[in-house]
Amino acid sequence: MKLLLISNSTNPGEAYLGWPRPFIAGFLKKYDISKVLFIPYAGVNLSAQGLKKSYDIYEERVSAVFAEFSCKVDSIHHHHEPASAVAEAECIVVGGGNTFHLVAQMHHHKLMEPIRKRIMQGMPFMGWSAGANVACPTLRTTNDMPIIQPASFDCLNLVPFQINPHYLDAHPAGHGGETRQQRIEEFLAINRNVKVVGLREASLIEVEGLEMKLLGHKPMRLFQFGIEPEEFEPGSDLSFLLHS
Amino acid sequence: MKLLLISNSTNPGEAYLGWPRPFIAGFLKKYDISKVLFIPYAGVNLSAQGLKKSYDIYEERVSAVFAEFSCKVDSIHHHHEPASAVAEAECIVVGGGNTFHLVAQMHHHKLMEPIRKRIMQGMPFMGWSAGANVACPTLRTTNDMPIIQPASFDCLNLVPFQINPHYLDAHPAGHGGETRQQRIEEFLAINRNVKVVGLREASLIEVEGLEMKLLGHKPMRLFQFGIEPEEFEPGSDLSFLLHS
Repeated sequence: MKLLLISNSTNPGEAYLGWPRPFIAGFLKKYDISKVLFIPYAGVNLSAQGLKKSYDIYEERVSAVFAEFSCKVDSIHHHHEPASAVAEAECIVVGGGNTFHLVAQMHHHKLMEPIRKRIMQGMPFMGWSAGANVACPTLRTTNDMPIIQPASFDCLNLVPFQINPHYLDAHPAGHGGETRQQRIEEFLAINRNVKVVGLREASLIEVEGLEMKLLGHKPMRLFQFGIEPEEFEPGSDLSFLLHS
Repeated sequence: MKLLLISNSTNPGEAYLGWPRPFIAGFLKKYDISKVLFIPYAGVNLSAQGLKKSYDIYEERVSAVFAEFSCKVDSIHHHHEPASAVAEAECIVVGGGNTFHLVAQMHHHKLMEPIRKRIMQGMPFMGWSAGANVACPTLRTTNDMPIIQPASFDCLNLVPFQINPHYLDAHPAGHGGETRQQRIEEFLAINRNVKVVGLREASLIEVEGLEMKLLGHKPMRLFQFGIEPEEFEPGSDLSFLLHS
């Protein structure tokens, strides 16, 4: 498998897709990718004029960045037969936004199985935020608001663990809502055999064949039921998580 | 209808159910309630020994508070026929925790319709956090992690708007994830005719017949698609939200 799973598109104050550009560029170059099929379904409100316009704007925004790497971006929402577009894609890129809307639309267009099949056959896949979540067995560790009910919480199941993107340690002072760690502990309480990777902003995971590595600028936090969370530094070999 | 919909159980640093005690006491007294049927399903990890033990502990914790108001607490998880318990209840109280688990279990035990029916016939209902969310048409404005897939996102539909409990304005510095307002705007983008009440911690809504009022210590923020959010002070008459 060839995966690039990115916690977040943009750190505050930076240009869109600022910090991950070198990693995106390296991934596209490594696999000689000149065109990607873009899945914009997580982008629900980039325009007040509705979803079609929102997807158009999202495609433009990503195209402007990928043009720097001489890579074209073709959004799946232009295709009358999305599954055929998947069958012909060089690489699939899934943008962030609302995970529930992304997963709802991927099920609606019956894309989970076709995309999974292509990736298992060797097609490279890249996703950030919601796009990293969708690489997991299910969406059950997203931070997003459940603005729409998807046909199923099942996702691409490319890795055998769950990612919590935008993982953060901070909690607003004086606020009584759950911390992120508490939310993940709730997940573990009823999903005891599933591992959760807390992927902080400005970090990402790369999978190449049977190997997996943490990249970027922040340590990762691994959660398992009944065990103290463990921290892993950037550069760590995480291959054991693929085989457990 | 007789509803008490509370944003959060506990402000940081206070005793459990600290700040809302006068409101809970007043509600129980007004309707002369001496025993409540408690729904503990949102409490998934109060014990490492599993759900049954977690529910037991949750019931004890709430019982200790309600005892101050000479009110007994009977948790529904002790009943082999939960729907029968609902039919005989004086008042239903739904505790906070994980909204997805709460809604999943309420559907699993086929409790939505029986509870709704009793409330429409005049039975008082109280809920905090997830328990306030479940009074809405759906769970689609919860902040919680979707740790389990419920049969449906549909909830009790007691009020014609959505509540976002624990509404907060703060956002961790340097974090790129969505603010709460941005999440609600995503909801509105694809649910344009639904109003969302951002219910800050330390505040609550009381419904009595055809009237609704904001109570507690914080203003409320009302979100509608395409309109600037509006603020309402504690004491405000919100009855218009019941009839729109």
